[in-house]
Amino acid sequence: MRISELSRRSGVPNATIKYYLREGLLPPGRATGATRAEYDESHLRRLRLARALVGVRGLSVAAARHVLDTISENRTGTHQVLGLVVGIWPADDGAPEAPQPEAPQEADSPHGHSPEAGDLLEAMGWSVSEYNPARRIIDRTVQTFRSLGMDFDWRSLLPYAELAARTARLDLDELRSLKDPLEKAERAVLLTFLLEPALMALRRLAQEAESVVRHGDDDPSSAPPRP
Amino acid sequence: MRISELSRRSGVPNATIKYYLREGLLPPGRATGATRAEYDESHLRRLRLARALVGVRGLSVAAARHVLDTISENRTGTHQVLGLVVGIWPADDGAPEAPQPEAPQEADSPHGHSPEAGDLLEAMGWSVSEYNPARRIIDRTVQTFRSLGMDFDWRSLLPYAELAARTARLDLDELRSLKDPLEKAERAVLLTFLLEPALMALRRLAQEAESVVRHGDDDPSSAPPRP
Repeated sequence: MRISELSRRSGVPNATIKYYLREGLLPPGRATGATRAEYDESHLRRLRLARALVGVRGLSVAAARHVLDTISENRTGTHQVLGLVVGIWPADDGAPEAPQPEAPQEADSPHGHSPEAGDLLEAMGWSVSEYNPARRIIDRTVQTFRSLGMDFDWRSLLPYAELAARTARLDLDELRSLKDPLEKAERAVLLTFLLEPALMALRRLAQEAESVVRHGDDDPSSAPPRP
Repeated sequence: MRISELSRRSGVPNATIKYYLREGLLPPGRATGATRAEYDESHLRRLRLARALVGVRGLSVAAARHVLDTISENRTGTHQVLGLVVGIWPADDGAPEAPQPEAPQEADSPHGHSPEAGDLLEAMGWSVSEYNPARRIIDRTVQTFRSLGMDFDWRSLLPYAELAARTARLDLDELRSLKDPLEKAERAVLLTFLLEPALMALRRLAQEAESVVRHGDDDPSSAPPRP
């Protein structure tokens, strides 16, 4: 198909597609003339994925290209791809946008490890690479709660970790039915990134609902204040 | 105590404390002279809370002031405070930073409702205000997955909602032991906001661990790619 049809079917504007082509987020089409190229279904799928990473979750073009390239290069290893996915964070998560090889050596602890995350992982029996940046988020969260004068350590996170394990099982169940490794990898990226805001939204909805059940009678009106 | 001691005990620089005082994030101290004021434990706690909202989760000063003011004004109603907490989102969540009274009327659906979130809430038996902005996050997520050509609707989120309900119960259990309503409100804000990055980090750690269990043998090496 031509760019115009790619645009129509994906809902991504022509100019954005050309930008993605220039930046290498989308591989070039098959040249059919001096200024013409043909694109196929794989371009369409890749375009939607690029759009989701850059447009919806706010990854930089460089970070998105890194994700897309690694997916293409690791077609066969589901675990490889998932390892990559968990290593890429949107910039707004407070973790580095691009992987930083020195990070483990420069961690906050003198041992170069994430002490709280390490204890938590051991208690959960989780096997996780030293390079997973989520370790540092755990450490930083514990530090923040402590700096607020709260009695908080990795044990406080254990019941949440138990629920996270179930969530991860749901995530991986979603991938089970997909046979094509590339499709599996793309779905892993989408699920991990795009579900995050929804999972936090579900928690806030559940908090309000649970609060109504527990405390609805405490207040003159059971409705929360209107904004 | 003087500002200098407030700074020492909170770890927040003098200049930042003065800025918070000017912006109304921190109530004025008790004047003990023309240029002197005394601060107490309530200032220290409020200062830590303001710092967590603005510094750690990136709320704007106006949004943080709104949260802090409403906590002070609603000392008695746990549910009121939780309703407020779930209505405030950091800017990076893709939801409006400040509450928008017109939002429900301007929603994407012609009925002015969040259709997907509404069905989900009904299926879960959750009682949630029309004004909870998490509804729109749910709708937007479903739309995004559909625009990527995936077969996805509110039913796809049901198993995740079940786990979110358990998470919310953990959150509210944490508040149970606190007697002072102001302290309870502050803790609710901290738990809701500050745990979010940790919960997403736990999911990614659990994904990697679960992936090792399921697919570790698929790959030549069981370790994910080093960054």
